[in-house]
Amino acid sequence: MTNILIIGAGLSSTDLIQYLLKHSDKYNWRIAVGDMSLELAQQKVGNHPNGSAFRFNLKDLEQRASEISAADIVISMVPASMHIIVARECLQYKKHMLTPSYVSQEMMDLHEEAKELGLCFLNELGVDPGIDHMSAMQVIDRIKSEGGKLLSFKSFCGGLVAPACDDNPWHYKFSWNPRNVVVAGQGTAQFKENGHYKYVPYNNLFHKLTKTSVNGYGEFEVYPNRDSLQYCELYDITGIPTIMRGTMRRPGYAEAWNILVRLGCTDDSYVMKDSHKLSNKDFIKSFLPENGSCAKESLAKFVGIESESQIMEKLNWLELFSDDVLELKEATPAMFLQKILEKKWALGDDDRDLLVMQHQFEYENTGMKKRIISSMTYEGKDRDHTAMSYTVGTPLAIAAKLLATGKINMPGVHIPTMPELYEPILKELEDLGVRFVEEESII
Amino acid sequence: MTNILIIGAGLSSTDLIQYLLKHSDKYNWRIAVGDMSLELAQQKVGNHPNGSAFRFNLKDLEQRASEISAADIVISMVPASMHIIVARECLQYKKHMLTPSYVSQEMMDLHEEAKELGLCFLNELGVDPGIDHMSAMQVIDRIKSEGGKLLSFKSFCGGLVAPACDDNPWHYKFSWNPRNVVVAGQGTAQFKENGHYKYVPYNNLFHKLTKTSVNGYGEFEVYPNRDSLQYCELYDITGIPTIMRGTMRRPGYAEAWNILVRLGCTDDSYVMKDSHKLSNKDFIKSFLPENGSCAKESLAKFVGIESESQIMEKLNWLELFSDDVLELKEATPAMFLQKILEKKWALGDDDRDLLVMQHQFEYENTGMKKRIISSMTYEGKDRDHTAMSYTVGTPLAIAAKLLATGKINMPGVHIPTMPELYEPILKELEDLGVRFVEEESII
Repeated sequence: MTNILIIGAGLSSTDLIQYLLKHSDKYNWRIAVGDMSLELAQQKVGNHPNGSAFRFNLKDLEQRASEISAADIVISMVPASMHIIVARECLQYKKHMLTPSYVSQEMMDLHEEAKELGLCFLNELGVDPGIDHMSAMQVIDRIKSEGGKLLSFKSFCGGLVAPACDDNPWHYKFSWNPRNVVVAGQGTAQFKENGHYKYVPYNNLFHKLTKTSVNGYGEFEVYPNRDSLQYCELYDITGIPTIMRGTMRRPGYAEAWNILVRLGCTDDSYVMKDSHKLSNKDFIKSFLPENGSCAKESLAKFVGIESESQIMEKLNWLELFSDDVLELKEATPAMFLQKILEKKWALGDDDRDLLVMQHQFEYENTGMKKRIISSMTYEGKDRDHTAMSYTVGTPLAIAAKLLATGKINMPGVHIPTMPELYEPILKELEDLGVRFVEEESII
Repeated sequence: MTNILIIGAGLSSTDLIQYLLKHSDKYNWRIAVGDMSLELAQQKVGNHPNGSAFRFNLKDLEQRASEISAADIVISMVPASMHIIVARECLQYKKHMLTPSYVSQEMMDLHEEAKELGLCFLNELGVDPGIDHMSAMQVIDRIKSEGGKLLSFKSFCGGLVAPACDDNPWHYKFSWNPRNVVVAGQGTAQFKENGHYKYVPYNNLFHKLTKTSVNGYGEFEVYPNRDSLQYCELYDITGIPTIMRGTMRRPGYAEAWNILVRLGCTDDSYVMKDSHKLSNKDFIKSFLPENGSCAKESLAKFVGIESESQIMEKLNWLELFSDDVLELKEATPAMFLQKILEKKWALGDDDRDLLVMQHQFEYENTGMKKRIISSMTYEGKDRDHTAMSYTVGTPLAIAAKLLATGKINMPGVHIPTMPELYEPILKELEDLGVRFVEEESII
């Protein structure tokens, strides 16, 4: 019998838990699900005979020790900054661990210790990071093994709303942490283009966009992510002339979002005075030079857009110019904006989300230049079984299965860039409906 | 005999040291000047019989203890972050201390202890901060004492170049720390206008400007400083409907500087790859979407200006589009830009700087609304005796004299917002040529 402990039963854990319960009889697994909310854990486990749900407080040292020591494999679905607590406990009790999150420096520092103890600490096993690594590396390794030389790698991903449920002018709804969407892109994006390093500060990020299309899903626009350059080393493609990773949105999103960025509405570095007294309109006016009565006109004038433009239609639809008072205490601009957006961009009862990923490779082989475009789309089933939850939870569940059944053994702290991990996971994902479609052309 | 120790003999200490030496016979002072550079200390002291110069290393615990314990009053002219080291030593050996710098939280935390020991720790005794506090408080206290009610307070300051030496299209040269000029304004400026709190992010800071003029010196433009709101409490004018502090530049500076900000050239948060290989032109191109051969045209197109505009004339004059390679290793964009600017904006051999300060008060008294505009200008004598050095060093020197002669006694950590400090200092400054001219009008 293998005991698998899942810490955290939030949205991203739904499909992870279902997968593991579904395969629990065959492999003789016991699935223990702990969460701060007992109700949430119970709801996710249901009355499955191989599952158990309990209230779990990561700060309770005794409970932490007893639950982790009783497990064989621990899947940490806690907020990213808290994985390290779970990891240290796993080291102490010699347990394998999996997370969907970016490897922090603290986590990386545990590599040698985990390796010596024969423990697998597998991270970045969700969708982005996760499926992005796996699907990109599969193509990169293939091109290399065929003797090709990579010239360009671009990789885009977006969590959006399914076309059938797309009923707002932004063509966007929240399918993951709204806060991350509000502060996305702050800092400076770094990438490489035709051998030139490029730096794009936040205030230009939503200004110059890449366009792309995905079969069956139409057009998208892409803004660069902050950290493209580190992927040269991560993917072992140092020296590649062009590398850029980006976030996908529907056309028109970025130019409207850029207005909010320019005003300063996404700033999370200070608390606004008397924020609980501000109406939405007051909020907007606090970033405008004029105190005139019409916030909408002042804004249009300040940023140089027409008051009847598509940008203004989007801003207006968010009710940014209303007299509603949200009564948010001690709010930063980003917190204030998030609250406004949560009312408008929430997935409705019947809404389904959409996950889109696309890699664009250009390479040279025996004098010929070729392009491979590899795209994946996945639509959620409903508000509880989102594409985001499915594509985050499923690769994690598959990796846990591979670990539990002895199919993989790679002690240390890892991310899924090696064939031993990505081949079996991508193969099963394909069977489960998460598949990449490749188009190859000569350029 | 009173021993006065000055730690740091940089540019800002020149006039401070000269003042103290000049008055040393009359008051029986010994002036000890320590600096990392013995040569610099010697140069500032000359062969004055009451002065001594020596090499001083603040990190040398023994030297620090012996020099500070031998002094009666310590004037700390070290970099702002290091005043706290001097302050702790002054507490231990029960010495008064003066600095020209903003009071840090760490410094503020010493208030009670200093007070109990009867020690005066006087800070913000330069020009800005320093003369700004004193001259503003003198008018504010007067308006209040006459029964007036303040409606608006705006305060501007700029370190510029004297008109006779103004020979570049930016109408600007460095008269203080170039680094601070390059990163000035990063973050979000906060102020209050007609009762409304206003927030201006860095990317809009150089966009909407206040204009003003100063008698005999023509026109200036002003961008808001980061921290205007805290002055409500500092100056005891909570509830004032309008408060804004700002930095003065010559007209046209900000719109050109804004281009550098928009590109990301002032970013100090990351190191540019291979920065030592970049020419000025490469530097600029790394912020532009195009890799075309003409950086100047790409830039003009990207930011939407004419290639023959005044903005472009300013950028061009900086040699931003040249093939020069500065060979700066591990440089952030801000460091790279600073190096470019230092070659162009340095005060020349015969150049003199200009210090401008202006306060604008609006108040109501017995039903009448009035405006007071109080302006001060001061031109440097030469490159070594700058207006900046004179206006920073002189109020400090006067405060040291007041302390040494027992004219002031206010134990604790203070800034010069009280009449006991500002009245005598402003009076003597006036005699020394640093005087405010007031214009009052009914509005």
